[in-house]
Amino acid sequence: MIPQIHADVIGQFRAIVGESNLIVDEELRNEYGHDKTEDYQFLPDLVLKPVTPQEISQILIICNKHRIPVTPRGAGTGLSGGALPVKKGVVISMERFNKILEIDEQNLQATVEPGVITEVFQNAVKEKGLFYPPDPASRGSCYLGGNLANNSGGPKAVKYGVTRDYVLNMEVVLPTGEIIWTAANVLKNSTGYNLTQLMCGSEGTLGIITKIVFKLRGYPQKNVLLLIPFVTNEEACKAIAAIFVEGITPSGMEFFEREAALKTYEYCEKVLNSPVTTKLTDNMDAYLLCELDGNDEEVLMRDAERVMNAVEKFQSGEVLFAESSAQKEELWKVRKNISPAVNWYTLTKSDDVVVPRNNLPKLIKGIKEIGKQFGFNTVCFGHLGDGNLHVNILKENISEHDWETKIPEGIGEIFKLTVSLGGTLSGEHGIGIAKRPYMPIAMSEVNLNLMRGIKKVFDPNGILNPGKIF
Amino acid sequence: MIPQIHADVIGQFRAIVGESNLIVDEELRNEYGHDKTEDYQFLPDLVLKPVTPQEISQILIICNKHRIPVTPRGAGTGLSGGALPVKKGVVISMERFNKILEIDEQNLQATVEPGVITEVFQNAVKEKGLFYPPDPASRGSCYLGGNLANNSGGPKAVKYGVTRDYVLNMEVVLPTGEIIWTAANVLKNSTGYNLTQLMCGSEGTLGIITKIVFKLRGYPQKNVLLLIPFVTNEEACKAIAAIFVEGITPSGMEFFEREAALKTYEYCEKVLNSPVTTKLTDNMDAYLLCELDGNDEEVLMRDAERVMNAVEKFQSGEVLFAESSAQKEELWKVRKNISPAVNWYTLTKSDDVVVPRNNLPKLIKGIKEIGKQFGFNTVCFGHLGDGNLHVNILKENISEHDWETKIPEGIGEIFKLTVSLGGTLSGEHGIGIAKRPYMPIAMSEVNLNLMRGIKKVFDPNGILNPGKIF
Repeated sequence: MIPQIHADVIGQFRAIVGESNLIVDEELRNEYGHDKTEDYQFLPDLVLKPVTPQEISQILIICNKHRIPVTPRGAGTGLSGGALPVKKGVVISMERFNKILEIDEQNLQATVEPGVITEVFQNAVKEKGLFYPPDPASRGSCYLGGNLANNSGGPKAVKYGVTRDYVLNMEVVLPTGEIIWTAANVLKNSTGYNLTQLMCGSEGTLGIITKIVFKLRGYPQKNVLLLIPFVTNEEACKAIAAIFVEGITPSGMEFFEREAALKTYEYCEKVLNSPVTTKLTDNMDAYLLCELDGNDEEVLMRDAERVMNAVEKFQSGEVLFAESSAQKEELWKVRKNISPAVNWYTLTKSDDVVVPRNNLPKLIKGIKEIGKQFGFNTVCFGHLGDGNLHVNILKENISEHDWETKIPEGIGEIFKLTVSLGGTLSGEHGIGIAKRPYMPIAMSEVNLNLMRGIKKVFDPNGILNPGKIF
Repeated sequence: MIPQIHADVIGQFRAIVGESNLIVDEELRNEYGHDKTEDYQFLPDLVLKPVTPQEISQILIICNKHRIPVTPRGAGTGLSGGALPVKKGVVISMERFNKILEIDEQNLQATVEPGVITEVFQNAVKEKGLFYPPDPASRGSCYLGGNLANNSGGPKAVKYGVTRDYVLNMEVVLPTGEIIWTAANVLKNSTGYNLTQLMCGSEGTLGIITKIVFKLRGYPQKNVLLLIPFVTNEEACKAIAAIFVEGITPSGMEFFEREAALKTYEYCEKVLNSPVTTKLTDNMDAYLLCELDGNDEEVLMRDAERVMNAVEKFQSGEVLFAESSAQKEELWKVRKNISPAVNWYTLTKSDDVVVPRNNLPKLIKGIKEIGKQFGFNTVCFGHLGDGNLHVNILKENISEHDWETKIPEGIGEIFKLTVSLGGTLSGEHGIGIAKRPYMPIAMSEVNLNLMRGIKKVFDPNGILNPGKIF
């Protein structure tokens, strides 16, 4: 017997999804109770794996009637706890919504289900010469629906925008069971309030996405990749602003500290069994990985030279120009494995702050000072081209007590600093439960009440993904 | 005495904005009762011209208390009646919010007031080598706030996106008087519901925008412009899809019928005293104006050749390659004066439908058939690169009775056709009052009720811009 849900109701769910798509077993249910945020664990009462919007609609009508909390879940790769069943109840796993329904090469659009893995979709459209740029580090396992719920970004956002810039239309099941399309499959739309953009980034609190129409681009045929070492973090940050002021828009402008690279080198060797051969320049504390892409080799080379001229004005080391696609892949491997590497090294709390680009030097300097004050070390990396810094706070030898009480205070200080620099709490990971206590730092009670009001319009009984964002 | 508003209340308004910014005189008030939509005219009871968010806040608190309808108004260049005081009450003119507050060359951002004329802003940032791409045909007179309220586009949207793609953050006065910022001045943001995108395109029904933070780009240094004639509309539309499939993204892909060009030539000569010297090719019914921009001349020339090769497969005439900046300007003059020219020729009802690009041939063919059936002529033109077609229905000799009864039925048929082709009612002009009756064609009652619910969250007493959208 499952405490919160009556046997009759479970019978109704069974009739909807079938025996094999209803999980009662505790050990199996437990698999749906964590994501990639710290060591959070919440046991749902029941896991359902529907396969059509109609099934979801029927489930939600029942849950709404009985006020059963419902948590929609993608691949469980979230970094803010947004898909965790903190109020127990039902988890709806979207894993069976895994079909690419159409790739429309004439209109450069694609219609997909939300349980498609991001990389699978990227590859499917690439085969047709098309490009879906949003590219979270977890692309090999995360779902497009989760990307949409959190408005994911990734390294290419700096040139090509984030998930919200590619979604045209969605099919959504509302908490009350109605199935709607948010918009139309068009590139421009001024027809009423923008429900598509309201849904995007709402972390599964307003409805469950069951189909997505994305727009696509032509695939850029060439790219160059530079690894640029700097003496200090601040010099690297200043150089970034200078590159953009030169009028260059790289397709990637990633930053990492030496410490992040060292941990990742170790992780690649010891865990992935795939040692990194590219040597790190000595005495350099910070690195920029700068990618330029396009269809014209000459233009790329010219822009690469302009980048190199721009960074020369700062305390930088010798630029590594990646010579082969193998070397490019290796450098991206380092960048993409920073987060797993750091989490392999120690438990972390991870932040995802974002500021206007020019304020990055102040932000990083301030974070290090806050770390000293509160007694924690950080590893900093991220998409600094668009001002988005990932800060992993390392548990290392910090006591459980301090980890749960003192460190959150320090995180509050990081957020206050971020907001004072014109920034905000999350660039691409969402708020979920991890950042929820800090929302009043970023916005007024009036803003929060508007959001609560909108939530109530969509979900009058508050059954859908309760306890998230605000 | 003004019927709806008590003398005491007028006194309170006078104390807020000062005598010279309160308009009681009927003739002057009348100037705030029309826009560029047909021949609509609605007399407001009072016009106020505040200059700070605090003044607007005080005005709204009073209006909310006394349930006085408030209509925010920009430059009055709207094409859907969105800024007209259909329920009388107070018009708040934003004309004194006309300052560019900051152009931040380091972060490529600008902070402006909503009453800045779009072209003034474009020129101010261009002087610093920066680019604000949204470019409505009325840019010489329209306001940025109105652009935001309607999510305006223009010819460059096909490559660079629409107004919503450039807004990062806004200061907004809510109908209940609170002043909020919708977000932060950052390029990526996953921090709660997207109030910025909800506000953008909401046609002044959710709040009054008082400051806007835009992101900017580097100004593309070079461009080429091609005028491509086609034997039929359909051939032109097919060619557009083919150009995009080739992987080329023009910075402008405008379409107009021969009839539109002829009317504009006449208008330029007779009204603007500025005759067009570029000759139109004989026996060609449709024209594409295709602009390519970038920083590299060679790449542009190569792309222009690819465009010419792509259109050769269709029934097209000799391509005119604009040789001088004077000729480019002239061709753009023709394009931008189509709407004024057609409205000079006769009263029109104007539509702004949008479909997936590949369905444009069916759309234009269907519109002409509907015109025959309902007895009206149309002039078609617009931003066909993003599937956005402007359809001006000509009054000519149609009787007043038919104009008010039969023609709206025909417009309903155009919208039904549009939606059946995967499109929707408005690409960039908004819904206002002109398209409001047709909203159920584009979306379900569930969608409309969500929008009404959101409206109620922001504006519990329904005082702000009542009678619009839904």
